[in-house]
Amino acid sequence: MSVVSAANWSALVEDDLSQMTRNLKNLLGTKHPVLYAAAEHLFNAGGKRIRPALVLLVSRATAAYGEPTERHRRLAEITEMIHTASLVHDDVIDTSAVRRGIDTVNSRFGNRVAVLAGDYLFGMASAYLARLGSLEVVELLGIVISHFGEGELLQSTLQFDSDLTFEQYIDKSFYKTASLMAGTSRAAAVLSESPAAVCEALYEYGRHLGIAFQVIDDLLDFTGSTAKLGKPAGSDLRDGNLTAPVLYALEESPHLSGLIERQFEQKGDLEKALSLIHASRALERTRELAETHARRAVTSLDTLSPSPAREALKDLVGHTVSRLY
Amino acid sequence: MSVVSAANWSALVEDDLSQMTRNLKNLLGTKHPVLYAAAEHLFNAGGKRIRPALVLLVSRATAAYGEPTERHRRLAEITEMIHTASLVHDDVIDTSAVRRGIDTVNSRFGNRVAVLAGDYLFGMASAYLARLGSLEVVELLGIVISHFGEGELLQSTLQFDSDLTFEQYIDKSFYKTASLMAGTSRAAAVLSESPAAVCEALYEYGRHLGIAFQVIDDLLDFTGSTAKLGKPAGSDLRDGNLTAPVLYALEESPHLSGLIERQFEQKGDLEKALSLIHASRALERTRELAETHARRAVTSLDTLSPSPAREALKDLVGHTVSRLY
Repeated sequence: MSVVSAANWSALVEDDLSQMTRNLKNLLGTKHPVLYAAAEHLFNAGGKRIRPALVLLVSRATAAYGEPTERHRRLAEITEMIHTASLVHDDVIDTSAVRRGIDTVNSRFGNRVAVLAGDYLFGMASAYLARLGSLEVVELLGIVISHFGEGELLQSTLQFDSDLTFEQYIDKSFYKTASLMAGTSRAAAVLSESPAAVCEALYEYGRHLGIAFQVIDDLLDFTGSTAKLGKPAGSDLRDGNLTAPVLYALEESPHLSGLIERQFEQKGDLEKALSLIHASRALERTRELAETHARRAVTSLDTLSPSPAREALKDLVGHTVSRLY
Repeated sequence: MSVVSAANWSALVEDDLSQMTRNLKNLLGTKHPVLYAAAEHLFNAGGKRIRPALVLLVSRATAAYGEPTERHRRLAEITEMIHTASLVHDDVIDTSAVRRGIDTVNSRFGNRVAVLAGDYLFGMASAYLARLGSLEVVELLGIVISHFGEGELLQSTLQFDSDLTFEQYIDKSFYKTASLMAGTSRAAAVLSESPAAVCEALYEYGRHLGIAFQVIDDLLDFTGSTAKLGKPAGSDLRDGNLTAPVLYALEESPHLSGLIERQFEQKGDLEKALSLIHASRALERTRELAETHARRAVTSLDTLSPSPAREALKDLVGHTVSRLY
C-alpha cells in the first residue's frame, strides 16, 4: 500500500482526547448514581477513540488557526457519546457480556439500564448538538443515528440470504460503521466554515475510511485467532451475517450457497463453508477491496491544504490498514 | 373541578391526526421490510394520540392564521415518532407482550428489532427536527429524549426505597411523562414565534397536564380493575415503584415502610400494604394532587388569547381528569 506518512495519528490529539474523557465523565457524573457508574465504566473502558480523534484531526486540518475550537471539542465529545450509545445498544442486542476486556453495561447493570443509558446518551447528544448552533450539523448527526438502526435492521433482514448483493453489503457497512465517520468528519469541517468542496472531500474521506474499517473487520473474522477476536473465527458466517469474503467465495463456489441457505444445519457444513472460502481467492480479494477504499480515503485528502493534521489523517488510514498484516 | 369547556378536544384536530398517521406510514414505509412492518404495526395500533393532538392544538392556538403550518405538522409527526420510540423501548425494558390490545414490537419482531426501531425513530426525529430550522426546538426535544432515560434510571434507583421524597416522585413523573408534553407544547409556540410569556405558559400547561396525567395513572393502578388496567391492581407497588398513594399512606402508617423495605417477601405483605393504603386518605389526597395540577394547567392558558383551540386545550385537561371518575 502506498500510504506514506510522517505523522503518528494519535500524537497530535492525545491531550485533546484525555481532556475529552474527563469532560465526558464530568458531564454525566453530576447525574444519578446508576448513570454515573455506567458512565465511569464506559469511559474508563477506553478503546482507541478513533472516532473523536478523527473529529479532532479534521478540526485541526480545517480550522482557521489550526487548533480545534470549543465547538470542535464539543463535537468530539458528542461523537463519542453517540458511538458509545450505539455500542451499549449493540451489546444488548447481541447479548454480549464483555467488550474491550471488561463487562458490558448490560451484563453489569442489566438490559433496563443499558437500553436507557443509550437513550439518555442519544438525547443528551441531540441537546448538546443544538448548542453548537448549526442546523446542518444537527441534521448530519441525526441521520447518522438513524443509520445505525437501519444498518442492523438491513443485516437482520438479509441473514443467511445468499442472494445478498455487493451493493447491499456496502450499504450495510456504510450504515453500521462508515456513516458516523463520514457525517462527523463533514460536521467538523462545517463548524470550521470550510468551502463546500472541502466538506464533501472530508465526508468521502470518512466514508471510505469507515468502509475499509468494516471490510477489514469482516476479513479478520475469518483470519484472526479466537484470542485476538474475542470470539471464534467464522462467527459472522455462523450467524448468517454474510460479508465480503463470503460474497467473493460465492462467485467461485456456487455450492457454498446451499450450505448457507440450509443455515449450516448438517454436521460439518460450517467447516466445509470455511474451507471453500479459504481455498478461494476471496480473502485476497477482500484485502484488495479494503485497500481500494483506504486509497480513496487518502486521495480525498488532496483537496485539503498540507498540514500536520492532514498527514495524521493519512496515518489514521495506514493504521487501519495495518491491522491486515 | 371547575373546568368548563365547550369544545371537544379531539374534534378540532381529527383530520390533522389522520393525515399525520398517513404521513408517518409513508415516511417509514419506503424503507426496509422489517421497519415497514414495525411501522405499520405501531401506527395502526393507534392509541389516543394525545401528544400530537396537543402539539396541533397549541399550533392552532398560537399560529398567526389559527391554522397549523407545515412546520407545525412536521412537529406533530416528530412528537409521535419520539413518543412511539420511547414506548417501543419501554416494552423491551418491561418485557411487555401486549400494548393497546395488540402484540408489542418486541414480542412480534424480537428485542433486536425493537431496540433498533426505537433508535431509528429517535435518529429520524432528530434529522427531521433539524429541517424545522429552529435550534431552540432541536434543543427542547433533545432534552425531552434524555429525560426518558433519566426518569427510568431514577425510578430503578429508587425501587423499594421508602425514603423517596415527594420531590423525587414529581421529578420522576416529570421526566417520564410531563417533559414531552411541556417541551413539545413550548416547541409549537416557538415555531409560531409567540412571545416569551406565551411560550413559557404553554410549557407550564404541558408540564402540569403531564404530571396530572401521570398522577392519575398512578392512582388508577390502585383503583382500576385488572380488565381495565391490563395488569393486576397494585402492580406498581409490587414492583417497588412507589407513587403518590404510597407516599401519602406512609405519612399516616409508618408501619408500611417495613413491608416495602423487605420487598413484600412475607406472605400477605402486599395485601397488608394495599389495605393500609385503601384505609388511609392516600387515594383521596392523590386525586386532589392530580386536580391541583389540572387546575394549574388550565390557569396557564389565561396567557393565551381566547380561541376554539384554547377551549379545546382546556377540554383536554378535563378529558384527562375524567379518567378519575
